[in-house]
Amino acid sequence: MTLADRLARTVRDVPDFPAPGILFKDITPILAQPALLSEAVTAMASSLAELGVTHVVGVESRGFLFGVPIAMRLGVPFAPARKPGKLPWTTEREAYALEYREDVLEMHVDVFHGGHGEPPRVAVVDDVLATGGTAAATCRLVERLGGEVVAVSVVLELGFLHGRDALSGRTVRSLLRY
Amino acid sequence: MTLADRLARTVRDVPDFPAPGILFKDITPILAQPALLSEAVTAMASSLAELGVTHVVGVESRGFLFGVPIAMRLGVPFAPARKPGKLPWTTEREAYALEYREDVLEMHVDVFHGGHGEPPRVAVVDDVLATGGTAAATCRLVERLGGEVVAVSVVLELGFLHGRDALSGRTVRSLLRY
Repeated sequence: MTLADRLARTVRDVPDFPAPGILFKDITPILAQPALLSEAVTAMASSLAELGVTHVVGVESRGFLFGVPIAMRLGVPFAPARKPGKLPWTTEREAYALEYREDVLEMHVDVFHGGHGEPPRVAVVDDVLATGGTAAATCRLVERLGGEVVAVSVVLELGFLHGRDALSGRTVRSLLRY
Repeated sequence: MTLADRLARTVRDVPDFPAPGILFKDITPILAQPALLSEAVTAMASSLAELGVTHVVGVESRGFLFGVPIAMRLGVPFAPARKPGKLPWTTEREAYALEYREDVLEMHVDVFHGGHGEPPRVAVVDDVLATGGTAAATCRLVERLGGEVVAVSVVLELGFLHGRDALSGRTVRSLLRY
């Protein structure tokens, strides 16, 4: 069985979460299988290594679960993109529209400091790519801080929500696509 | 220089966050140093391996940053303890008092299923041990779900806030103590 098949058998479908009519893809059972999690992290990291990634940004909160091990596998710095008011130091922020409200992500302004010459080659990591709103906002934030987004890397992609359209030409890598 | 010394030099002190008079210990610079992060994770995992840990629980959100790599290093399942309403499937919940309000943590009820005989030996992982309220609530939740808490493992411990008292006799492991 391929990695995608094994991930598909492990992800749990939860109907009517977070709202009626939505079939939620619960990735927590992947975290409960150390060998499968390790294989998924290795696959995501290998695909990013080919792109010469120098920094990993993980989107709060589930992007932290995969982003840190991927960064460690690559041996590169990890930076969190967080909900407003969570990061203690000086931040840059990016607002984005959700269905009924606006949300905001923040990053510390110095996350890409300390490099020399070439701009950092950044991978934005999350668990699921849905409509792409959060990922697109994170990409804009990374670019505003001087990074080049070389890939958006996710475990699962809900293709029917057209998240790639919101990411307008950016490279998307997913292990499993619905 | 010891690991504790290098961590102490890397952690960033942020005055008056999240409220006036509080000196916040910002652990994000550790995440930006892959070698140091890896060494910290290895040290935390080694100390938990000695205790025969079979499951790691990470407390949302910063506990995810260290908890997942520790679980992967140990080759054991990881389970998240999350803010209310975030976990999609059936949960158990535990309320705990903060200074001006009550907060709640949730875990999926099946996180320790699938074992045989002996109860799971659980490590609760977070970045910082402060007053211990969140850690104690997580321990109670783990116990309610049938786990035995064999250690609370953190990167930094703010000893002057007496978090160990709130954890009443449970084993606490920290890499750096203030």
